[in-house]
Amino acid sequence: MDVQPIYIGGQWRQSNYLDVFQATNPRTGAKLPDYFPISGWEDLREALEKALQVVPELASSGPEKIAGFLEKFAQLIEEKKDIISQIASLETGLPQKPRFSDVELPRTTDQLRQAAAVVREKSWCQATIDTKKNIRSKYGPLGGAVLVIGPNNFPLAFNAMAGGDMAAALAAGNPILAKAHPLHPKTTQLLAQAAAQALEESQLPPGSIQLIYHFRPEDGLKAIAHPAIAAVGFTGSRSTGLAIKEAAEKAGKLAYLEMSSINPVFLLPGAIQERGEAIAQEFFSSCLLGNGQFCTNPGFVILLEGKETQEFINRCVKLFQASDPGYLLSEQIKINLAKGIKDCLTSGAQLLCGGYPLEGPGFRFAPTLLLVQGEIYLPKPQVFQREMFGPVSLLVLGQDEEQVAKIAISLEGNLTASFYTHSQGKDEALYQQLEPIIRLKVGRLLNDKMPTGVAVTPAMMHGGPYPATGHPGFSSVGFPASILRFAARHGYDQVPQHRLPPELQDKNPTGHMWRYIDGQWTQASITKD
Amino acid sequence: MDVQPIYIGGQWRQSNYLDVFQATNPRTGAKLPDYFPISGWEDLREALEKALQVVPELASSGPEKIAGFLEKFAQLIEEKKDIISQIASLETGLPQKPRFSDVELPRTTDQLRQAAAVVREKSWCQATIDTKKNIRSKYGPLGGAVLVIGPNNFPLAFNAMAGGDMAAALAAGNPILAKAHPLHPKTTQLLAQAAAQALEESQLPPGSIQLIYHFRPEDGLKAIAHPAIAAVGFTGSRSTGLAIKEAAEKAGKLAYLEMSSINPVFLLPGAIQERGEAIAQEFFSSCLLGNGQFCTNPGFVILLEGKETQEFINRCVKLFQASDPGYLLSEQIKINLAKGIKDCLTSGAQLLCGGYPLEGPGFRFAPTLLLVQGEIYLPKPQVFQREMFGPVSLLVLGQDEEQVAKIAISLEGNLTASFYTHSQGKDEALYQQLEPIIRLKVGRLLNDKMPTGVAVTPAMMHGGPYPATGHPGFSSVGFPASILRFAARHGYDQVPQHRLPPELQDKNPTGHMWRYIDGQWTQASITKD
Repeated sequence: MDVQPIYIGGQWRQSNYLDVFQATNPRTGAKLPDYFPISGWEDLREALEKALQVVPELASSGPEKIAGFLEKFAQLIEEKKDIISQIASLETGLPQKPRFSDVELPRTTDQLRQAAAVVREKSWCQATIDTKKNIRSKYGPLGGAVLVIGPNNFPLAFNAMAGGDMAAALAAGNPILAKAHPLHPKTTQLLAQAAAQALEESQLPPGSIQLIYHFRPEDGLKAIAHPAIAAVGFTGSRSTGLAIKEAAEKAGKLAYLEMSSINPVFLLPGAIQERGEAIAQEFFSSCLLGNGQFCTNPGFVILLEGKETQEFINRCVKLFQASDPGYLLSEQIKINLAKGIKDCLTSGAQLLCGGYPLEGPGFRFAPTLLLVQGEIYLPKPQVFQREMFGPVSLLVLGQDEEQVAKIAISLEGNLTASFYTHSQGKDEALYQQLEPIIRLKVGRLLNDKMPTGVAVTPAMMHGGPYPATGHPGFSSVGFPASILRFAARHGYDQVPQHRLPPELQDKNPTGHMWRYIDGQWTQASITKD
Repeated sequence: MDVQPIYIGGQWRQSNYLDVFQATNPRTGAKLPDYFPISGWEDLREALEKALQVVPELASSGPEKIAGFLEKFAQLIEEKKDIISQIASLETGLPQKPRFSDVELPRTTDQLRQAAAVVREKSWCQATIDTKKNIRSKYGPLGGAVLVIGPNNFPLAFNAMAGGDMAAALAAGNPILAKAHPLHPKTTQLLAQAAAQALEESQLPPGSIQLIYHFRPEDGLKAIAHPAIAAVGFTGSRSTGLAIKEAAEKAGKLAYLEMSSINPVFLLPGAIQERGEAIAQEFFSSCLLGNGQFCTNPGFVILLEGKETQEFINRCVKLFQASDPGYLLSEQIKINLAKGIKDCLTSGAQLLCGGYPLEGPGFRFAPTLLLVQGEIYLPKPQVFQREMFGPVSLLVLGQDEEQVAKIAISLEGNLTASFYTHSQGKDEALYQQLEPIIRLKVGRLLNDKMPTGVAVTPAMMHGGPYPATGHPGFSSVGFPASILRFAARHGYDQVPQHRLPPELQDKNPTGHMWRYIDGQWTQASITKD
C-alpha cells in the first residue's frame, strides 16, 4: 500500500502511521484512491521538536523573508489553480467553478498577499514609544509554534496549510504545524507542496511550516501541551473546540476557536411589508450558499407575526422547495442534520419544508425550513439555538415586540446578527430597542444584509462572544487584526538603539510605517533636539 | 458586633455574611478593630444581578460620563490622601511616607486620570473603517461585568476598587465587581467611599461599581461562571490564579492574571568588572524595595564565575546584612519565605546571609541571599524558579558562557528580564547570544536597569508569557493597552450613519481622534467625493 508522505522539518517523508484513511467523493459516496496516514505520537513528537528548534531562528528571520514566502506561496497556488480547484471539488462535492476557481482560490491567494503586504509594511506590530522615558514596545512572535486545525467547509481559504490562521500566525513570526482536515487531504497536500517550494525559495528555516494529515484526538491534545506549542488556531465544531480549549488553557497555551454560530437575522415588520419578496430571495440565496455549510449561515430568523410575515414565509418555502439540493461535505453532516431537525420538532417546532435526507448516491439533504412560535421557543432557548450545519434555517415567530425583545435577550454569543428594517424609518423604534441587546452579543452587526460573505479587510470583525469563539476581542479574518491573536507584546526598557528591533529604533525603518509615539500616530522618525 | 457594610447596587448595606474578619497590623501582629463581612452567596448573587442589569445602560452611558467619574474619583482620593495613606500604612506595615502619600497614592490618581484622558480622547477603541466596503469596527464593552481581585502588595495602585484593572475595565464600559484584598479592607473601604461619591456625581448608573470585601473561594469560582461576569482581572499567587483561570475558561470567560515572576537579572562579566559596586547597590535597593514584596522583584540573578563576581557577591552580602528588616504584609508571607528557602537549601543552594524570620512583635524576615551553582541548578530548574515573595534573591552561578545560555533556556515565562553589560561593548557577543532566547520568554526586557519601577505609559509592557500571566499579548499597566484586555471588537457592516457609534461615523467625533481608515491612521473625517 502506497501511503502519502507527511511534511516534517522541510522533508516529505513516510509517516510512522497508526492507520490510514481515504477521502470520500461526496457526489458518489465512494472512497478516493489515495491513502493518507493517521500519524502516531512519533510523527507528532518529531514535528514538535523541529518546531521548537525553529522558533528563535524564524523569529529573527525578519519580515522580508516571511513576506517573500507568502507572496511566492500565493503565486504557486495560482500556478496550480486548475488542479487544486479540481481536487477540492472532488473532495468536497462543491462546484469547481465558480466556487473554487473563481471565488475561494482567489480569496486564498489574496489573503496571503494581504498578509505579506502587512508584514512588509510593519505597522501591524503597533510600535509604541515613550521617548521621554525611553520605554518601547511592539507585537512580536509568541515564542512557540502555532498548531492550526482547519475546518471541513473551506478547503482553501481556511485550510490549515494556506488559510487565514496560517497566514496570520506566520505573519507574526511563528512556526506552523498544520493538521489537514481529513475530508480534503489531497487538496491540503497540493497546498503543502506549493508551500514547501515557496519555503525553499524564500530561505525560511526548514520546519517553519509542517504538515500532518491526521492524528488521534488524544495525541492532538497531548501535542497542545508540548512546550513547542504556544497557541492553537481551530475552526470547527463546538464539541471539538471545547476539548481543544480545555487542553490548551490547562497547559497555559492560547486557544483561538471559531466554534459555532446561528447568526440571528431580525426581519422587522416594515422591511417585510416594504420588500418581502426581495428579502425572501436574499435569505434563500444566503442560506443555501455552499449548501448551507458556512459559519455565517443565517440559521435563525426572527419575525413578528402578521399577514405579510405569513406571505414572506410562504415565499421562502416555495424557494426552498424549488431548489436543487447540493451535496454535503460528508455523510456525518447528513446524519447530524437529521438529528438536529428531529430534536427541534420534538421540542415543538413545525416543519415547513424539507426535513429529510435524499437517497444516494452521494450525501444530500432537502433544503429545510423550520418554524417555532415565540412562546414555545422562550422556555427552552438552548434547544433551538443549535447550529444545524447545512441547508437549514429556523424561523422564530414573535407574537409582539415584547416577545421579540425576549428572544433577543435569550441569544448566546454569535459571529453575526443582521437587522432588516424599513428604508423610511418605520422600524426605527424597534431597531433602537433591540440593537443595544444584540450589539453586545455578536461580533459583526449587519443592516439589510445577510451574514454570508466575509470580506477580507482590516475593518472586518469575524469573531464574537463565547460560545461563537473563545475571545471576543479578536477577528480571524482581516489583517492586521487577525495577526494580533498570535502575537506577544514585547517591551524594551532603556535598551540602546543598536539592540532594538528596527521597528522600535528612532529612525522609522520604512519611512512610512505607522508608530504610536508619545501618544500620537506618526510616520516620522524620532529626532533628538 | 458592628460589621462594616458592603456596597451593592449603589447602596451601602449590611451583608448577609457567613463570618467576619479583621485586618492585622503587621508591625505588632495585633488585630485591627473593624469587623468586615465574609459574604455568602446571597450577597454575591445580588451584586451579580445588579451588575447584569447595568451592563447595557453603562455600555450606552458614553465616554464623557465614564471619564468624568474617573477624574472625580481621583480628586476625591486626593482629598482623602492623609487618611488613606495612614490606613494603608497601618494595614500593610509599609511606611505612610514616602511609600503611600508620595508614591503609590499619586500613582493611583495619575492612573485614573490617564484612563479618563484616554476615554475622552477615544483613540483607544482603534476605530477601523473600510470606506469602499462600508465595513467598520472598533473596541467596545464586553457585555458583562468584570470581577476584579486585587493583590496584597499594592493596596492603592492595584486595589480592586481603584487600581489599574478597575480603571481599565471601566474605561472600556464594563461594570466592576471589586473584591477587596482581606489584608487591607479599611483602605479599600475608604477608596470605595470615594468611588461611591464620584459615581453619584457623575451620574453613572448605580451598580456600575460594587464592593464585596471577602468571600469563600468556592463562591468566587461560582460567581465567575455567572452570566453577569464577562472577565476576571486578578493579581496574586499562582495557585489562586490557576484556580481562577480554570473556572473562568471553563465557563467561557476571559481571565487576565498576573501570577508570579522571578524577574531574571543577567549580570554579564564586563559590567561586574566595570561597575560592580554600583550594580550591587542597585540590586540591593531594588530587591528590598517594598521589603521585596513587588511583582518585579529581582529574585533570580545570573552571574558568571570569577574573581570579580566573588567580590560582587561579597558586597551584596554586606549590604543585605547591614540593612534593617522591614515588615512583611502578613504572617503567611513569613511562613512561605521560610519554606521556600528551606526547599532551595535542601535542593543544593547555599545560604549567603539571612534565611531566618525575626522575633516578634510583627512580621519580619532577615534579608536573604541564596546561591546555587549552575550544575546543581540545571538538573532541576523548576525547584529554583519559585517566587519567594519578600526580601530574598537567588544568585545562580554559571561556570561558563555555555552554562549561562543553558540557564537562560531553562527559564519559564516572566514579567521582566534585565541585562547589565559593559558600557564599551565587552559583553556584546554574550548579550547577542542570550537576548534571542530571553526575548521570547518575558514581557519587558531591560538594559542596565533593575526591574522594579513600572512606569504608567502607553509604551509599558507589564505582562508576559505563561506562567507570569495568562496571555502574553496584553499589558496590565499603561493606557490604552490595558483597556484592550476588557474590550470586545464590534463590527458594523452596512450600518447607516445615524445608527453607528460616533467613533465610527464619517465625521471625526472629536476632530482629533486617531482612526485607521483605508489602511492609514488619520485624524481626518471621511468626506464623500
